[in-house]
Amino acid sequence: VAAELVHAATLLHDDVIDQGMERRGGPAARVVYGNAASVLGGDHLLIEALDRVRRVGHSGLLADLLAVIGEMVAGEALQLERRGRFEPDPDVYNRVLAGKTAALFRWSMTAGATIAGLPTPQVDALALAGESLGMAFQLVDDALDLAGDPATLGKDGLLDLKEGKLTWPLIVACERDPGLHTLLATIASDPSLLDDPDRCQRLRKRLLDTGCIQATQARAKASADTAREALSSLPKTPARDA
Amino acid sequence: VAAELVHAATLLHDDVIDQGMERRGGPAARVVYGNAASVLGGDHLLIEALDRVRRVGHSGLLADLLAVIGEMVAGEALQLERRGRFEPDPDVYNRVLAGKTAALFRWSMTAGATIAGLPTPQVDALALAGESLGMAFQLVDDALDLAGDPATLGKDGLLDLKEGKLTWPLIVACERDPGLHTLLATIASDPSLLDDPDRCQRLRKRLLDTGCIQATQARAKASADTAREALSSLPKTPARDA
Repeated sequence: VAAELVHAATLLHDDVIDQGMERRGGPAARVVYGNAASVLGGDHLLIEALDRVRRVGHSGLLADLLAVIGEMVAGEALQLERRGRFEPDPDVYNRVLAGKTAALFRWSMTAGATIAGLPTPQVDALALAGESLGMAFQLVDDALDLAGDPATLGKDGLLDLKEGKLTWPLIVACERDPGLHTLLATIASDPSLLDDPDRCQRLRKRLLDTGCIQATQARAKASADTAREALSSLPKTPARDA
Repeated sequence: VAAELVHAATLLHDDVIDQGMERRGGPAARVVYGNAASVLGGDHLLIEALDRVRRVGHSGLLADLLAVIGEMVAGEALQLERRGRFEPDPDVYNRVLAGKTAALFRWSMTAGATIAGLPTPQVDALALAGESLGMAFQLVDDALDLAGDPATLGKDGLLDLKEGKLTWPLIVACERDPGLHTLLATIASDPSLLDDPDRCQRLRKRLLDTGCIQATQARAKASADTAREALSSLPKTPARDA
């Protein structure tokens, strides 16, 4: 529950930070209730999450969660710093991914094991599984933004690009079709170029032609395999198999 | 230090929430660095403050601070809910004051005593002193907004009114000159009316003529006296006398 609350707090603040208009197929909370309520609501959820974890009475658990939230803030700060410039730097992408998504998955996956006092190798296996699962999740989310069916997703395609977010398919596409770099940099500095549906369609086709979606799915699958392998070291239980 | 960090985090977020333009005689951080950096910077400071308190290893201290931040969020939420309407309600004012200002003063004043394990009556005396001092501080701040010298303060007068904040002098003034209620409500729904310096001057004079500044200073003095009295129950030391 604490991780869900932290996640919700982060979404509220991130939408203010990124000036996001949509979230999960509907208007973002800040569009409906305003930036002010989103900032304050995020603060409230964050404090509520930390207080729930504090009440468990396990000091290591709270220390870990505070460190994770620190990583999430650092990841978002890195993303913010790069906004408006398009630099397909895999290292920056990986750092943002580790901070913004993988860290909270890792904490969620280990919280129960930490409280239960499981042996360190098992906690470490769960940490690796959580982190890898988080990475797989984000990579699939990146791929859907470009290749998903807008009707099913409930959002326009290329939303990440419109909001100035660097995704893995874009990095792969620029490696394979270097001319895309300049084009995407132009769009990053003026996202309104994507308001033209024809330009959007042409850009999407050129991106897809590089095979960047398949490459992203392959990396996501490798990450999921790492997670599965890490879990295989744990005792066989219905929870593990699920 | 933790209280200072929480305070700084609150200022960053509050300026985003209240769309404040000025802070301590200069442009607000959000004006210089943007809303995004202010939201994220506030999150960072908040986590840093909580982690410092966690490292002290006193669970009650952290629980108290989380509760105080919860009160601060609730106080800001109440203020936000009332924005754009002018309702000179002393009860609402007192609740915002207790949450937004007095609670953190109270925590700061008792943190050392809590860690040192002082007897409950002494911790309670420090809590009352901190809370009363916080109230006195805010009341004086309210009075300065209306009666202070703009050149010395480094800010335009009536800034609170422009930002839709209810202050104690305004409540007193409306009690004593009921016609002011409608006028201030009109201004609250359209703060641009205060862009006219002549109107500003006339309004300020009418407010001051009610004696609301003296009444606010008297309440601040009573609060400071309560703080002084509470401290008098503590052992006589240079720190207490200071």
